[in-house]
Amino acid sequence: MNEFELIRKLTRNLPTNKSVVNGPGDDCAVLDIGAAGSLALFKTDSVVEGIHFTRETPPEKIGRKALARCLSDVAAMAGTPTAALITIGLPKNFSVEFVQKIYDGLNALAREHDVAIVGGETTVNPERIFISVALIGSIPRGSVLSRSGAKVGDAIFATGELGGSITGKHLDFEPRLAEARWLAENFSIHSLMDISDGLAGDLRHILTASKVGAELLKIAIPISREAKEIAKRGDAAKPAFVAALTDGEDFELLFTVASKDAVPLLDAWKQKFPDLRLSCIGKIIAGEGITLRDEAGARPFTGHGYAHFS
Amino acid sequence: MNEFELIRKLTRNLPTNKSVVNGPGDDCAVLDIGAAGSLALFKTDSVVEGIHFTRETPPEKIGRKALARCLSDVAAMAGTPTAALITIGLPKNFSVEFVQKIYDGLNALAREHDVAIVGGETTVNPERIFISVALIGSIPRGSVLSRSGAKVGDAIFATGELGGSITGKHLDFEPRLAEARWLAENFSIHSLMDISDGLAGDLRHILTASKVGAELLKIAIPISREAKEIAKRGDAAKPAFVAALTDGEDFELLFTVASKDAVPLLDAWKQKFPDLRLSCIGKIIAGEGITLRDEAGARPFTGHGYAHFS
Repeated sequence: MNEFELIRKLTRNLPTNKSVVNGPGDDCAVLDIGAAGSLALFKTDSVVEGIHFTRETPPEKIGRKALARCLSDVAAMAGTPTAALITIGLPKNFSVEFVQKIYDGLNALAREHDVAIVGGETTVNPERIFISVALIGSIPRGSVLSRSGAKVGDAIFATGELGGSITGKHLDFEPRLAEARWLAENFSIHSLMDISDGLAGDLRHILTASKVGAELLKIAIPISREAKEIAKRGDAAKPAFVAALTDGEDFELLFTVASKDAVPLLDAWKQKFPDLRLSCIGKIIAGEGITLRDEAGARPFTGHGYAHFS
Repeated sequence: MNEFELIRKLTRNLPTNKSVVNGPGDDCAVLDIGAAGSLALFKTDSVVEGIHFTRETPPEKIGRKALARCLSDVAAMAGTPTAALITIGLPKNFSVEFVQKIYDGLNALAREHDVAIVGGETTVNPERIFISVALIGSIPRGSVLSRSGAKVGDAIFATGELGGSITGKHLDFEPRLAEARWLAENFSIHSLMDISDGLAGDLRHILTASKVGAELLKIAIPISREAKEIAKRGDAAKPAFVAALTDGEDFELLFTVASKDAVPLLDAWKQKFPDLRLSCIGKIIAGEGITLRDEAGARPFTGHGYAHFS
């Protein structure tokens, strides 16, 4: 049973109440806790030594990554982050300086995005460092942007360049908060999420939630220089376009809009964010799953992204 | 460096913003996120296999405890819990049935207190199960009940019976949510917290935050039957009253009120909660630290509660 199957099983019949606008299954939970103009976003995300970083990772980058992942989930709702709590499980022989540097990286990113760090907890996890970040944010009331709104005919967009994040970007990525809010404020975005487990796997979450399929243009997939370099290194490596479709931890935005909005959006984006590539990578079609089109024709793409336990 | 020293170091100069009403240092963070009548409570708490439970602990009780600890922190603010996110780190060989039972215990307690479980995360923690619960709750605006309001002359109260929680109560305790709300609604409570690390250690948090001392009456400390039984077993065991003062995980309420309110409060409590003992255990005095008074006189009590890493 992989991570997604386990989550599906566990999230059946969870307790709910009148505060819940959106429960499990999207980038953040959405709660109505009585603010006149806004809804609350609620998210947790964790990083574990040996999985998401190593003892050799600079500690500032560990802390930065732990918070940035949560911020990327807030971006995936076009939201604004407010406050975070930090839980750190530590081996008994931890270095205080190392832990302080984890916080230094985390605090610096929090200040960039005006996020308050309002406490947390230290506990013992004898074999490895385990960091969980809990985050509260907000979105304007009435503007819930979920994974389930993609419509047949929509253009599919991705920010940045994909694949090969393991060479460094997974520690240094910029959560796309400003970009996502700008998109939501200026265009009718049908569906939005962040690419955390690989473009193909994450796009499938949108397709499943929206009950549609997607046709991607192979030539339009924005492949990172890192993915291309890794692909050149040896026969064992996956082709660069497959890396762009399936490598995890890109933390770019993936979204769909009505096709009529695609060109105006691209034009406005280039004015607003000239340094961040935006690619129209395909379109939403009837059916299910991902079809990949190249000069030889169209065929199903079945490659998966990252899943724990798989 | 123990847990509390580390936390003091890490929580210096944390990023803050205009949403923060109370940051680190109390049972929950308090945030103003725009609701007209209420403030938001925000808390995380974790349980780790081998520290807070074992592989032999019934999994329903593990899940129950993970949530109950957070609920006890909401009670410590006289708040109402709203929604929780659950993070579980699992060894790769986990049993799906075991994890489902953790959720069963957690869900049952959530339903008792009308708490929504709005998602969470599963990840890998190879050597042991690690569960972190993040919780949002609320308090009426203008009714922040912190650890820092104790005043010289206050009567000090504790609910329930203390010590020996390790024999079972640490898995079965009832978070005192209704009791705390009733106290806050009906009396002018000066300071309030839950007893999680031992009465003496937790009382010292109130004393330090309020810049006062306490005199406890040894005979008034409510000692649990379990603490008495453990004390009888051998010379190595600590005396029962020391267990009541220093054992962790009681999750009872500890609070102070003006001395003039002490008797009316006790009388009203007996009417409202006839099945839950409430004890006036001493008074707030000028100075610092805990003085313990018995028939032989008064002397400083320096015993500590539980601290990770110590």
